Amino acid sequence: MTDDQVMNANLERLAAARDEADRLKVELVGLHQELIRWGLVVWTAGNVSARVPGADLFVIKPSGVAYDQLTPDQMVVCDFEGRLVEGSLKPSSDTFAHAYVYAHRPDVGGVVHTHSSYATAWAARREPIPAVLTMMGDEFGGDIPVGPFALIGDDSIGQGIVATLAESRSPAVLMANHGVFTIGRDARSAVKAAALTEEVAKTVHLARQLGEPVAIDPGDIDHLFDRYTNVYGQ
Amino acid sequence: MTDDQVMNANLERLAAARDEADRLKVELVGLHQELIRWGLVVWTAGNVSARVPGADLFVIKPSGVAYDQLTPDQMVVCDFEGRLVEGSLKPSSDTFAHAYVYAHRPDVGGVVHTHSSYATAWAARREPIPAVLTMMGDEFGGDIPVGPFALIGDDSIGQGIVATLAESRSPAVLMANHGVFTIGRDARSAVKAAALTEEVAKTVHLARQLGEPVAIDPGDIDHLFDRYTNVYGQ
Amino acid sequence: MTDDQVMNANLERLAAARDEADRLKVELVGLHQELIRWGLVVWTAGNVSARVPGADLFVIKPSGVAYDQLTPDQMVVCDFEGRLVEGSLKPSSDTFAHAYVYAHRPDVGGVVHTHSSYATAWAARREPIPAVLTMMGDEFGGDIPVGPFALIGDDSIGQGIVATLAESRSPAVLMANHGVFTIGRDARSAVKAAALTEEVAKTVHLARQLGEPVAIDPGDIDHLFDRYTNVYGQ
Amino acid sequence: MTDDQVMNANLERLAAARDEADRLKVELVGLHQELIRWGLVVWTAGNVSARVPGADLFVIKPSGVAYDQLTPDQMVVCDFEGRLVEGSLKPSSDTFAHAYVYAHRPDVGGVVHTHSSYATAWAARREPIPAVLTMMGDEFGGDIPVGPFALIGDDSIGQGIVATLAESRSPAVLMANHGVFTIGRDARSAVKAAALTEEVAKTVHLARQLGEPVAIDPGDIDHLFDRYTNVYGQ
Repeated sequence: MTDDQVMNANLERLAAARDEADRLKVELVGLHQELIRWGLVVWTAGNVSARVPGADLFVIKPSGVAYDQLTPDQMVVCDFEGRLVEGSLKPSSDTFAHAYVYAHRPDVGGVVHTHSSYATAWAARREPIPAVLTMMGDEFGGDIPVGPFALIGDDSIGQGIVATLAESRSPAVLMANHGVFTIGRDARSAVKAAALTEEVAKTVHLARQLGEPVAIDPGDIDHLFDRYTNVYGQ
Repeated sequence: MTDDQVMNANLERLAAARDEADRLKVELVGLHQELIRWGLVVWTAGNVSARVPGADLFVIKPSGVAYDQLTPDQMVVCDFEGRLVEGSLKPSSDTFAHAYVYAHRPDVGGVVHTHSSYATAWAARREPIPAVLTMMGDEFGGDIPVGPFALIGDDSIGQGIVATLAESRSPAVLMANHGVFTIGRDARSAVKAAALTEEVAKTVHLARQLGEPVAIDPGDIDHLFDRYTNVYGQ
Repeated sequence: MTDDQVMNANLERLAAARDEADRLKVELVGLHQELIRWGLVVWTAGNVSARVPGADLFVIKPSGVAYDQLTPDQMVVCDFEGRLVEGSLKPSSDTFAHAYVYAHRPDVGGVVHTHSSYATAWAARREPIPAVLTMMGDEFGGDIPVGPFALIGDDSIGQGIVATLAESRSPAVLMANHGVFTIGRDARSAVKAAALTEEVAKTVHLARQLGEPVAIDPGDIDHLFDRYTNVYGQ
Repeated sequence: MTDDQVMNANLERLAAARDEADRLKVELVGLHQELIRWGLVVWTAGNVSARVPGADLFVIKPSGVAYDQLTPDQMVVCDFEGRLVEGSLKPSSDTFAHAYVYAHRPDVGGVVHTHSSYATAWAARREPIPAVLTMMGDEFGGDIPVGPFALIGDDSIGQGIVATLAESRSPAVLMANHGVFTIGRDARSAVKAAALTEEVAKTVHLARQLGEPVAIDPGDIDHLFDRYTNVYGQ
């Protein structure tokens, strides 16, 4: 297909999924506020995206817009090559990474990127966060893994995320010297994973500062993960 | 009694205590906001419960509901086996632990659970917080003790809480690799204990990072605890 | 004089200073909010008082009342023996310490007490905060000193504050294993000193964690203190 | 020119730039709120200024005014010698440092000064923050450098800022034992640089506490800086 044909096909899919996309734009404004509420981002350094059901498209934050000025109609829609399909603003500079994840993980409905301080400190040392908390058994099913060092601008970051998460039950990956990417069945789940990533990154950091946390038996981690996945919540 | 008979008996007791239960539901919404206000919880990872006076029942948060969306009518009532007596939502996944405490500690009117960061860091090392602050003499009457490692899903956590607190004047226990449970004569007192647990966990952590805090004489701890218990407040 | 005569004399002085006392009650409600705003207190663990001009009296917070529920008419007036002169609530349990400072430091118009985390961590090690920041030259004129360990309930804490501050230009003292007391020409100045105490306690703590801060020449500290005292502000 | 002649010339330039100056006064009130929002300042210890386009003048915060009471008409206008040109309040005590930067860096449209905790901790050790985060490549193009120890009251601080930044791509300098100064093409950019300075100061501090962060290749830092400078934002 030519670029024009691709764009037309994308616009048709968007028209079919119009209601879903509009709902997601509103939801994403609220979820970016959650990044602020839980102290995960500074200035404009973080973003949330959501897959548009029934289309190879996702909604994402525009680049460099302050969180307290975000409105639903500023949100942009992109395809899985990271190309702008709808919106008058430039997409987040992390759009290619989000796009790669959606293209290669059909189970993922939401992606979040932050540079939250404690988690990024582990990432700067390229050190996984060990599963020494029951909360880590619950939400991450084990350690939070480290992905490769990758530069922005092409598929490198997306590839690193997908490859690292393929070998883990964790919905979060610490990209080396960079920050956190999380995935979820929807955008809200990915934001939750981002909030809990920073929380456990902080708690284990603090524990390690004054000695060594006691390890949790891998069988107990399995028990916690299974129960949390199948019983927790409404 | 059959399960149906138990449920009917519980519903009768709840009918008799209806006004108290309704008042507690309103109070608990406000007390969950205190968990946020003092930075004790992230996402939905913490809960407060309150004993219904005159009944073997308690009110507790539903599982997985965001703190800023909690309403009094979402609160659920459970019996001391952790069974749902009233409410349309699923109770907190920590309900069995709360239930065990109420069943075995008739003096307790409120229970709080958090994963607050500094306190949970001590819990991850399974290390009690030493009483090196006058605030610890006041509120805890000594060290904050560590309870056993216990998995969620049965009475293990509740047993660990009750057994550990039986040997201490502290209203708080650090459950190994898990987090904080606190008790109080009412729910507000238990929330206060949770807030002060995190505060002293942080302060003693900071003190230890650059040397050793000076110990307080046990007799002075006793003096502080007695005075605070009998003189402080209105 | 008999106790009744003392009380009558105090009530006469209060009547003469009625407008000042009422103004201070309103101001103190706002200043307790500043303790919250700058993260200096948890739950009800801190208080601000203000001398009533023209009377040997001061206004102080009642014991155990939550900051967000404080109203001007809840504030209580005490004399320099710590006796209640006006108000229906019990004064702060730190009232004797405040009273002693007003009785022995006629230049002091406001007193603040907190357990702010970083400053109290230095206090737990009984270690003064070294003057390695220009902000410390400005506001404290040197190190922030440590006072003795003293129990609540009599003049011990007040004596420790006054004796320690007599040998320093600092408006703040770290009471051993306890917390911070600050003084000022008025209550607002004392709150400012409490906020800056925690700020420099944190910054020097952080600096020390990764090495040794570089000392500032004592002559430069003098220069900073003199300039700040005489030039800064409106 | 005599002092009177200088003042008259400045007032004429201000008259010509009246609309710009008024717009900047409003903008600066909002930008001082950003200092609070991102936790960069305590009490009144920080300030933002903005160059008045088309005039050798800048708008700056008055000295010692609380951030939540700042109004546009309280903002003062100064010339590049730091002399007050318009306004009834005394300018910030850091005015000479701001003035020197505007006089010697015609590309700078905004200047910010903070004592933010983590960054000032690096400054107290006189240690540059190493570029071990992709965010540092983006925003700072390398390490954040340390400037000399300089006393307030003359051109020393301004000279230190300008000389240090002349040898770096960083918009931020850590002034020894003092705090942070940042520059930008406008005041908003300088505030952003101040917020990101504290963020990376914290993250690298945390990373260093438990080991050594992995270095980023200088060529990758160049790539990140070039891309961020030319592609990011709207």
